[in-house]
Amino acid sequence: MQPTLHTSLYILKSYKMNRTTTPVKTAKPTVVLKESNKENGMHKTMKALVYHGPGRKSWEDKSKPTIENPADVIVKIIKTTICGTDLHILKGDVPEVTLGRILGHEGVGIVEEAGNAVTDFKKGDHVIISCVTSCGKCVYCKRSMYSHCVNGGWILGHLIDGTQAEYVRIPYADNSLYHIPEGSDEEALVMLSDILPTGFECGVLNGKVQPGNTVAIVGSGPIGLAALLTAQFYSPAEIIMIDSDDNRLATAKTFGATQTINNSKENAIERVKELTGGIGVDTAIEAVGIPATFELCQSLVAPGGVIANIGVHGKSVELHLETLWSKNITITTRLVDTATTPMLLNIVQSKKLDPKLLITHQFKLRDIIKAYDVFQHAAKEKALKVILTNE
Amino acid sequence: MQPTLHTSLYILKSYKMNRTTTPVKTAKPTVVLKESNKENGMHKTMKALVYHGPGRKSWEDKSKPTIENPADVIVKIIKTTICGTDLHILKGDVPEVTLGRILGHEGVGIVEEAGNAVTDFKKGDHVIISCVTSCGKCVYCKRSMYSHCVNGGWILGHLIDGTQAEYVRIPYADNSLYHIPEGSDEEALVMLSDILPTGFECGVLNGKVQPGNTVAIVGSGPIGLAALLTAQFYSPAEIIMIDSDDNRLATAKTFGATQTINNSKENAIERVKELTGGIGVDTAIEAVGIPATFELCQSLVAPGGVIANIGVHGKSVELHLETLWSKNITITTRLVDTATTPMLLNIVQSKKLDPKLLITHQFKLRDIIKAYDVFQHAAKEKALKVILTNE
Repeated sequence: MQPTLHTSLYILKSYKMNRTTTPVKTAKPTVVLKESNKENGMHKTMKALVYHGPGRKSWEDKSKPTIENPADVIVKIIKTTICGTDLHILKGDVPEVTLGRILGHEGVGIVEEAGNAVTDFKKGDHVIISCVTSCGKCVYCKRSMYSHCVNGGWILGHLIDGTQAEYVRIPYADNSLYHIPEGSDEEALVMLSDILPTGFECGVLNGKVQPGNTVAIVGSGPIGLAALLTAQFYSPAEIIMIDSDDNRLATAKTFGATQTINNSKENAIERVKELTGGIGVDTAIEAVGIPATFELCQSLVAPGGVIANIGVHGKSVELHLETLWSKNITITTRLVDTATTPMLLNIVQSKKLDPKLLITHQFKLRDIIKAYDVFQHAAKEKALKVILTNE
Repeated sequence: MQPTLHTSLYILKSYKMNRTTTPVKTAKPTVVLKESNKENGMHKTMKALVYHGPGRKSWEDKSKPTIENPADVIVKIIKTTICGTDLHILKGDVPEVTLGRILGHEGVGIVEEAGNAVTDFKKGDHVIISCVTSCGKCVYCKRSMYSHCVNGGWILGHLIDGTQAEYVRIPYADNSLYHIPEGSDEEALVMLSDILPTGFECGVLNGKVQPGNTVAIVGSGPIGLAALLTAQFYSPAEIIMIDSDDNRLATAKTFGATQTINNSKENAIERVKELTGGIGVDTAIEAVGIPATFELCQSLVAPGGVIANIGVHGKSVELHLETLWSKNITITTRLVDTATTPMLLNIVQSKKLDPKLLITHQFKLRDIIKAYDVFQHAAKEKALKVILTNE
C-alpha cells in the first residue's frame, strides 16, 4: 500500500442533467477581457494559477471575474490551499478541465460584490468558500446531497474558474458560502472548505463511528488525519491508524490515534485481529483510493461493521462477497456534500477541534508555483496542507 | 443472468469462537440409539431425511432426539419445507455438513418436551421454528444480530440435526421458537422460519425501501418474491422485477410488481433508466447470488441509493469503485437474523400479508424424496415453496 494525497472529486458526474456551467474548449489559453470589465477605461485583471494541459500551469494575468448571474458573489481571496485533486488535474486525469481553467476549490475571503438575488451576503463579509456549489432547489439539494446538485456540485476549479486566484466568482452564493464569525482564525477555516467535511462526512458519519467502537483508518495522509480528528467527536474506544510511512503514523499518534500499524513492516490484518479480540473493527475507513487498501478494509471489518470509502478510485476493486455476503456489513461511498460545514464551524469555535493541526506549510499566494512543488513532494517535505495567503 | 433458488446460509462462520455444537464425523451413516432413549424398553425412533454425502440422501429411521441441555425443547414437526440451501448441501457445497446429518431449518410444530431451563414453552404449545438459533446472551444477540450468535446462528440442518424429520431438538428454545397464535393458518407460518424474514431483513430493511421510492429486485425466485411482498409494507412508488423467466415475472406481477423486465430479451439497464427519469433506482435488491446480477445492481442504483445483497455468493465480484466512489451509495450484506419474526407474525395476523402466495406444492413428509425432486426442477415445475406435512 502506498498512501497518496487525497484526490477527491475528479470524475465528471455524467448523470447531471441540467448543468448551468458548460466548459468551453479553448484552442489555446487566452485572457479574454470583457468590455464590461473595465475600470477607468482599463481592463480589470488579476493574478491566477492557470491550467494549460497536463504538466503545465502558470501564475499569470486573468480577467477579474464579474457577476454573471444574480445569485453570484465575487470573493476576494484571503487564503487558499492546494488539494490532491489539483495534482490529479495537472497530471491530466480530469479531462473535463479545459485549458485556461483557474484551479482551486478551497479558501476564505471577503465579499467584493454580490448579485441582486443574493440576500445573505454583502460587500465586506468574511466568508468560507465551500468546495461544493449548491443551488438549494434541486432534488438532491433538498436531500442535503449537495455534491450531486444538478446545477452545481463540484464545479469550482473544475468546470468553472476556482479559488487559486486573487478573486473568484461563486454561483448560488447564499447556499455555497458561510459567514466567518468575528474574531475567528481564518486560516484554520480554510480546512472547512473540503478536507474536514470530507474526512467527517465520507469517513466518520458514513462509517457510523460510535462511542466505545473500534475504528481502523487506512491511510494517514491529510484526509485520513481529518477522519482521525473528527472521529474523536464520537469517542470510539480505539482508533487504529494504518500507513506505510512512519512519519505520518507519528503525526497520527499526536492527533489521537490509539494504535498505529506500519503495514510495510507488520501484517496489518493480524495486528488488527490481535487488537480487537479476533473480531475486526466496527468501522474501517479507506482513505487512500487503491485496490489494495480497499481489500485490506474488507479483511479488517467485523461482522455488523462498516467500510466507509473516502478514497478516489481510478480502477475497479475485487469485492469478496463469497465471504462478506453473510457478514452483515455495510460499504459506503460519498462525494463530500459539505452539509456539515455549519456544525464543523461550531465545533471549531468551541475549541474542540483545531484544524490548524493539518497546516504544515505557509506561502504567499504569488509563490503558488513553489507551494505546488512542495505539495507534490508531500512525503519528503512532510507536508499536509499548505496555506497560500493573498497579501 | 440465470436466477437460482435462494441458497442462503451455507458458509461456516469461522469467527465463531464458542460453538456449543460440534459436528462429529461418522464413517458411515448409522442409527445410534441411546440407552436413555427408550420407551417400554424399546428404542424410540423416528423417520428423517438424512444426508449421506454429495448426491445421496434417504428417508430413514433415526433416533428420536432428546433433551441434551436444559434450554432445549423437542418439537414434533407439523409442517416443514425445503430451501435452496438444502440443495446446495446435497451438491456438496457445504462441507461442514457431516454424513448422517438430518437436513432442514424451517418448520412449525408442537412442543413435545421442554428442558428445565425453558420458561416460555411447554408441552403442547404450537410453535414456529426460526432458522436461526440464538442464545440471547452473547454480544451479537444483544445487538439483535442473531445470525452471528456465538453459540447458535444457522446450525439447524447444518451443524446439528434439522427439521426434515418427525421430531427436532431446538437449543436455546426461549429465543429460537415463536408461539403460534390460536386459529392461525400454520402452513402459512412456515414461511416465517426463513424466507420472509430473509427477503424483508436482507432486502427491504437493508435496502431502506421508503414511501415513494423506486425499487428494482434482480431475481424473481422465492426470495426475490418474498422481498417483493414485504417491500410493499413501505409503499414504494415503483417495484421493478428483473428476471430471465417469463413465468416468474408473471407471478411477480400478481404479487405487486409495478414493472417487469425480462433481461434475456431486453436491456435491463436501459429500461430501468427509462422508467426512472434516467437516474436509476433508490434501492436495488440482489436476489440471485452471481457476479452478473450484482454487477447489474451497480448499474441500476441511483446516486444516494442502496444495493441490498440477499444472494449467497460463491465467488468474488467486481466492484466498480472507479464510478461508484462518488455516487454516495450504500452496499449491504446480511445473513438473516430473524429479528423481525414477531413483527412479521403480527402483519400476517392482520391479513396485510399472505405468505401462502409463496406455496405452490404440497406433499406428505414421508414423500419428501419426491418433493426434493420437484424442488430441484423448480423452473420446469413452476415451484416456489413446497409444504411437507407430517401426518
